[in-house]
Amino acid sequence: MTNRQITIAELPKDALTRNHFEMGETDMPVPGDGEVLLRVILMSIDAANRSWMKGATYRAAVQQGDAMPTYAICEVTESNSPKLQKGDIVAAEATWSDYITAPAHKVQKLPKVPQLSNLMSVYGIAGKTAFHGLVSVGRPIAGETVLVSAAAGSVGGYVGQIARNLGCRVVGIAGGSEKCDWVQKEFGFDACVDYRDPGFAKALRKACPDGVDVYFDNVGGSVLELALANMNERGRVVCCGAISQYDTEAPTGPRNLPGVVVVKRLRMEGFIVMDFAQDDDKALRALRHWVEAGQIKVTEDIVEGLENAPQALIGLLAGENKGKRMVRVSADPA
Amino acid sequence: MTNRQITIAELPKDALTRNHFEMGETDMPVPGDGEVLLRVILMSIDAANRSWMKGATYRAAVQQGDAMPTYAICEVTESNSPKLQKGDIVAAEATWSDYITAPAHKVQKLPKVPQLSNLMSVYGIAGKTAFHGLVSVGRPIAGETVLVSAAAGSVGGYVGQIARNLGCRVVGIAGGSEKCDWVQKEFGFDACVDYRDPGFAKALRKACPDGVDVYFDNVGGSVLELALANMNERGRVVCCGAISQYDTEAPTGPRNLPGVVVVKRLRMEGFIVMDFAQDDDKALRALRHWVEAGQIKVTEDIVEGLENAPQALIGLLAGENKGKRMVRVSADPA
Repeated sequence: MTNRQITIAELPKDALTRNHFEMGETDMPVPGDGEVLLRVILMSIDAANRSWMKGATYRAAVQQGDAMPTYAICEVTESNSPKLQKGDIVAAEATWSDYITAPAHKVQKLPKVPQLSNLMSVYGIAGKTAFHGLVSVGRPIAGETVLVSAAAGSVGGYVGQIARNLGCRVVGIAGGSEKCDWVQKEFGFDACVDYRDPGFAKALRKACPDGVDVYFDNVGGSVLELALANMNERGRVVCCGAISQYDTEAPTGPRNLPGVVVVKRLRMEGFIVMDFAQDDDKALRALRHWVEAGQIKVTEDIVEGLENAPQALIGLLAGENKGKRMVRVSADPA
Repeated sequence: MTNRQITIAELPKDALTRNHFEMGETDMPVPGDGEVLLRVILMSIDAANRSWMKGATYRAAVQQGDAMPTYAICEVTESNSPKLQKGDIVAAEATWSDYITAPAHKVQKLPKVPQLSNLMSVYGIAGKTAFHGLVSVGRPIAGETVLVSAAAGSVGGYVGQIARNLGCRVVGIAGGSEKCDWVQKEFGFDACVDYRDPGFAKALRKACPDGVDVYFDNVGGSVLELALANMNERGRVVCCGAISQYDTEAPTGPRNLPGVVVVKRLRMEGFIVMDFAQDDDKALRALRHWVEAGQIKVTEDIVEGLENAPQALIGLLAGENKGKRMVRVSADPA
């Protein structure tokens, strides 16, 4: 038995292509003392994968020759640790591979649920990122206007639905009119504006007649600049990502910074989902409540096959996904 | 008796010059019902004067033909209100004038102190801005590194001294080696770095061996960009002003925004001093304590004569002041 693994053939200088990746085969990894052998079931595909290729962030940079790191849901197939048993379902820092080994204390046992993919979307990174960023960083109050970019993306749809459930007016930003229509219908946003449209600036102003109180930023760049121009005094900018800048060098930062932050007394604050791990139980309880009440719609974008992971990431950076994108490497356990 | 008044002859398009101002004479203003006549004693000269000429901010824009607005300390010389008496000392939203009238309920009675100018420096806008911005927005903890730009300016010196009194390592940024030396000697900063020096980036890194936890930003632009690059995780950027951008159009915003805010989970937050008026008593008590204990040195930069107000502002924008700049229009009461 061999193990497939996708490594970085060459680090990208600008736009990511399939040539930056290489599929190889290794021997089946053998778990050491205290380790487990894991069968990868689902891998999370995130814009962050691309940013890790740019240099050190909150984690070390990914280098040429490395297997691409990923957050994954896996099944324990062999255990050399009393902590875990064969058949357990766990979350792990994995790589783009069929199988990996990991120290048992570094993986997290997951509950058995009818659909494992939900542990990666609404009950996983996407849902928790949306909840913690919006609730703990953005702190919206009913009646306020919440604007979110990449509204059709993995996090944006949950941000909007949570904000709506909290009593806010919710406006999305997405690429293309078809996607904007979909965001409104699928997630019940009050409006969604197409950033590719030449009339974007005007349309955004019109969609936010009372200004913007919380802007949940997934993209950075010129969209952030325009959102800042529409913020109300004491507005909050939740800095979650900068997808517009992962694949290209930014020619300029938002030109209205820091002036607009002073004048309007804005708060811009960055976070990553792990910062709020102590509140995960609260987040999951709230998300489950809304899902069961039909107030959050779960949309997943599952690409089949490990071999399609590079294209899944490239497509994500081009904005082709609707909802949380992941790659299915193997089947859920029966 | 006539009243001198300086108005805007023409709004500046780029660098401010004396030709943008005009000295005129008006009749002595006459206070109406409920109003007072005020003799202007000291006028605050602030970078904000320049930003008001650029467009609406937290106040309406200053227009051609307007008298330049200013925060001023004045003596009541005539009162048509039971609230104030002749001889009272007040703070008022005034203009660059010898005399103004104002509704009595819109001015704030000040305590009689040995030196009125202190009410504009350490016990006035400058000291309160430094205190509220650092303490309530920056929230430094003993042992942290606090970096402040425009360290020789009206606010920067107090920021540094307060931070030092709270147990922080304090690093300043100022223009020119003479000013940097002065900041260290006068205010006891641990280091002060010259932003005009070609080796600025390296010198700043060296002056902050443990990184920067709180950056108090008075300047924006490329200095902000560099400061951001030196921030520690969970650092706080206090956005107080953007003096580098008042006199010119910014060619670019900081190119590392918002990326660095996400990756390092920074908080950037703007404020203006009035936002914390409810805490003014606390601020003044702390400042008085430190001044009386010799732990805050009060440095004032007083330009004599109303006619010199334009040059005082132009010089401030060029960074020539040391400490809080004000213009003396008339003498303190005997």
